[in-house]
Amino acid sequence: MVAGIKRCVTGILVVAFGLIGIESAAAQSSDNVPPLTVLVHGGAGAMEEGRYTPEEERAFKAALVAALDAGYAVLETGGSAVEAVEAAIIILEDSPLFNAGRGAVFTRDGDNELDASIMDGATLNTGAIAGVTRVKNPVKLARAVMEKSEHVMFIGDGAEKFAKTQELEFVPRKYFKTEHRWQQFKDRLAAEKKSKQTQRAREEKYGTVGAVALDAEGNLAAATSTGGMMMKRYGRVGDVPIIGAGTYADNASCAVSSTGWGEYFIRLTVARDICAQVEYAGKDVAAAARDVIHNRLQSAGGNGGVIVLGPDGTFTMQFNSKGMFRGVKQADSSAEVAIYGDGAM
Amino acid sequence: MVAGIKRCVTGILVVAFGLIGIESAAAQSSDNVPPLTVLVHGGAGAMEEGRYTPEEERAFKAALVAALDAGYAVLETGGSAVEAVEAAIIILEDSPLFNAGRGAVFTRDGDNELDASIMDGATLNTGAIAGVTRVKNPVKLARAVMEKSEHVMFIGDGAEKFAKTQELEFVPRKYFKTEHRWQQFKDRLAAEKKSKQTQRAREEKYGTVGAVALDAEGNLAAATSTGGMMMKRYGRVGDVPIIGAGTYADNASCAVSSTGWGEYFIRLTVARDICAQVEYAGKDVAAAARDVIHNRLQSAGGNGGVIVLGPDGTFTMQFNSKGMFRGVKQADSSAEVAIYGDGAM
Repeated sequence: MVAGIKRCVTGILVVAFGLIGIESAAAQSSDNVPPLTVLVHGGAGAMEEGRYTPEEERAFKAALVAALDAGYAVLETGGSAVEAVEAAIIILEDSPLFNAGRGAVFTRDGDNELDASIMDGATLNTGAIAGVTRVKNPVKLARAVMEKSEHVMFIGDGAEKFAKTQELEFVPRKYFKTEHRWQQFKDRLAAEKKSKQTQRAREEKYGTVGAVALDAEGNLAAATSTGGMMMKRYGRVGDVPIIGAGTYADNASCAVSSTGWGEYFIRLTVARDICAQVEYAGKDVAAAARDVIHNRLQSAGGNGGVIVLGPDGTFTMQFNSKGMFRGVKQADSSAEVAIYGDGAM
Repeated sequence: MVAGIKRCVTGILVVAFGLIGIESAAAQSSDNVPPLTVLVHGGAGAMEEGRYTPEEERAFKAALVAALDAGYAVLETGGSAVEAVEAAIIILEDSPLFNAGRGAVFTRDGDNELDASIMDGATLNTGAIAGVTRVKNPVKLARAVMEKSEHVMFIGDGAEKFAKTQELEFVPRKYFKTEHRWQQFKDRLAAEKKSKQTQRAREEKYGTVGAVALDAEGNLAAATSTGGMMMKRYGRVGDVPIIGAGTYADNASCAVSSTGWGEYFIRLTVARDICAQVEYAGKDVAAAARDVIHNRLQSAGGNGGVIVLGPDGTFTMQFNSKGMFRGVKQADSSAEVAIYGDGAM
C-alpha cells in the first residue's frame, strides 16, 4: 500500500489525504460515465499496528479483497449497485472474522442478535431488520424487506416470520457462534464479575461490516450488517438498521455505510448528515465526512468511521478510531485494502 | 379559529400561510428571550370536514388543548423542553382518542405494539423503543432509555425488561384495547376477507401523537409516540422510533415530530432533512418543512405531516394529507388547535 492511488480511469495520481482517511478526487472518465466502484469496511476501532499477527492481517485483508471482488464482479456484469453491496456483504457475513453473520459477538444472554439494512440510492427505497437470530444472511433479509414488502423495517420474531415467507436460508443459532467470540464473551463476563463494572471500554473494536457501490447506470447503494455491541442487552439496537445513521444512499448526494459506537451515530444521524452536507452545503464527500467524523462525532465523544461514495465516483473513508478495516475497488484497478490509521491505503 | 394568529410576545399579527400549513414569524420577545412554546399533533390523514361529529371534534380539540396546557405548565414552572414534551405526550397517550398508548390500533394478530422516541436538542441525547406491549406510557420508557441507559434504542421484550429496571407503570395488555379500535380491526379483517386484498387504503388516518417544545433556557426537544400502522405484522416498525425520521431535535436547527406513512418518512429521513435544510441551506423552518412535505414527500408518494419549532420560537405545521390534529401554545397566549386543512388554525 502506498500513499497515493493511481486511478485508471482518470490517469491522475490521486494523493491520499488526511491522517486517518483516504479520499479520491472526482473520478469521472472522459465519456462522463462514472467509474464502477465498490467500497467495503469491516469495522473500526482500537486496531493499532501490532494488534494482529501477520497471519491474521492477511486473513482480514483477504476477506476484504474477496468482498470487493464479489461486489465488483456484479457491477462488471451489469448488475446493480444494490446487488453489488449485497454480494460484498454476504462475503463478510459468511466470514467468521467480522462481527456480522457468522462470527457475530454475543449478547449478555449469550445469544447472537443480528441487524442489517440496505438502501437504493436511485429510488430511496430501503429495508432494515433488527434482532434476528436464525437468518443466515441478514443483508438478504434486509433486501427482501426493501423489495418484497411495502415496509421498511421489521424487528425480532416478526422479522423472522417475514423471512419464512421469502426464499431465505435459515440456520440453527449455533451457526453464528464461533469459538473466538465465545471466548471473548466468557472473558468479558469474568472481567465484569471481577471488577463489578459493566461499562464497555470506551475504545473497542466495532465489528460492523458495510459496503457502498456505484453501478454502470450511475446508481448508488449502501448496506450495513452487524452483530451489534458485545454484551448488549434489553434488545439494544445500534445504528446499523437505522436509516440515516448506519446506512444512507441517495443518487442526489452520496452513499454511506457507518461503523462505530452506534449510539452516537444515531444521535448525529451520521450517514444522512454527510449526505445532507453534500446536498445542501455544497461540500464534496470528503469534506462532509471529515466534518461529521472529525468534528461532530469527535466532539460528541463518539468514535468510528464511514465509507462514502458520490455519484461521480468520488469517495472517502474517514475514521477517528485507531483503525478501520477498509478497501476500495474502482474502475478495473486492483482491490486495495488497509487496516490501520496510517493516512493512506 | 381565524386565519391570522396574534402572538402576544411580538404584538405582530402573523398571517397564517399556505393552503395546508400554518407558520409563525420569528417570535422573539424584545429582551431576546425566546418565547415558551409547545406544539402538539395527534396524527394526520384523511380527515375531511364532516368526518367527525361536532361532539367528536370537541373531544379531539379538548384533548389537544389539555396536552398543550400540560406541556406549557411544565415550561412556565421552569421545566425543561424534554419534560414538557413528555408531559404533553402522556396526555395524548392516556387519551383513547389517539393511536398511541391507550387507544392504539391493532396489529394483524390482534395485539397492540407501541413505539416511541424522544430527543433533547441541547445534548442530542435521545431514546427510542419499539414493539412494547405492556408499558403504560411508552414516552416515559423512551425518556428512561435516554437518561438512564447508555443506549439509544431498545426493542421488544428486551425493552420491557429494561422498563422493569425503571420505575415505570406496567398495565395488562387489555388496557390498550378500546372498543372503537377493536371494531375497526374486526371491520378491516372482514373487509380483507371479502376483497381478498390486504393493501391499506392509500390515504388513511395516521394516528401518531407528537410534541415539540422550547423552554426558558432556549432548549428544544421533540417526542413522538404511536401504536403504529393498523394491521401491521412481522414486527413492522415505522418512523416513530427512528431518530431522524419521526423525531429530531437540535438547538442548532430545529425540533420536529412527524406523523404519516412511516415508510416514506424513514426513506426521506423527514425530521433530519428539515433540520438539515435549516442548518445547511439557511432556510427558515417553514421553508424547510414545505420543501420536505410538499415537494419531497409528495413526489415520493407519501403523505403525512410535521410540527416544527426553531430555537427562536418560529414554528410551522405542514401536512399534505387532508387534515392533521394539531395545536400550539406560545408565550402565554391561549392554546390554539385545529383539525382540517383549511389553511389556518
